[in-house]
Amino acid sequence: MSISFRHASRADVRAVLALLTDDHLGATREGDDLEPYHAAFDAMAHEAGNTLIVGETGGQIIATYQLTFISGLSLRAARRAQIESVRIASHLRGQGIGTAMIADAEARARAAGCMLIQLTMNRSRSDAKRFYERLGFTPSHIGFKRDLS
Amino acid sequence: MSISFRHASRADVRAVLALLTDDHLGATREGDDLEPYHAAFDAMAHEAGNTLIVGETGGQIIATYQLTFISGLSLRAARRAQIESVRIASHLRGQGIGTAMIADAEARARAAGCMLIQLTMNRSRSDAKRFYERLGFTPSHIGFKRDLS
Repeated sequence: MSISFRHASRADVRAVLALLTDDHLGATREGDDLEPYHAAFDAMAHEAGNTLIVGETGGQIIATYQLTFISGLSLRAARRAQIESVRIASHLRGQGIGTAMIADAEARARAAGCMLIQLTMNRSRSDAKRFYERLGFTPSHIGFKRDLS
Repeated sequence: MSISFRHASRADVRAVLALLTDDHLGATREGDDLEPYHAAFDAMAHEAGNTLIVGETGGQIIATYQLTFISGLSLRAARRAQIESVRIASHLRGQGIGTAMIADAEARARAAGCMLIQLTMNRSRSDAKRFYERLGFTPSHIGFKRDLS
């Protein structure tokens, strides 16, 4: 399968939302109304280094991830690339798309001068843990979240 | 102790670096040359929503953290606030400065419309884990890192 990755356009928001929902955690926590998702897409466009990527094959969007470049002082002023909201269409999992997607993220991170790539994964995604370890990621950190709503 | 938190200026970079180094992990992984740290400070200034905060008491910078607002589509288009590089001067730990710092981050996150506040912590910081749990953070995620250097 040949997949190409590119920056999402505003017209892709509906397809990205469908992928976010096509997931055992995402199924219950997303909404139907596109308006807040379009607003978030517009907000991202105003945050330099915060990008939404889609993976396409045969004109269909079948994967997505968010990639954010974050400059900072720590680790000898290392710029970081952060991956978030990784999704692959459920009927296409286990075919190497995830590996291609992380390779795409890594290439973009290197091009942006990042020295580190990072992500957090919900503990319930046990298959994904093995996947990231296979790709050379170290589970060195604990990821904390706190709801502000 | 009365602490005030404010955005760091470029002139604060040296003091922030001293705090980054005043740490059992940071002691070995930071450099002496200020130039890359100043460059990172300037890069942050071009990334909307990426801010460096310092805590001051009696004209001395005694704490710092980085706060980044990240818009995104997932979780009903929730904007996130991400805390990074939290440091308190070693001789002032255990006096409630951390709690004040997280409260400051939370206030800034809410003012920026964030629905979620998140951070990762190196597993070796076992005291910090209890600290964040006490403040209502849930250790729901595994944080992965991969060096690109």
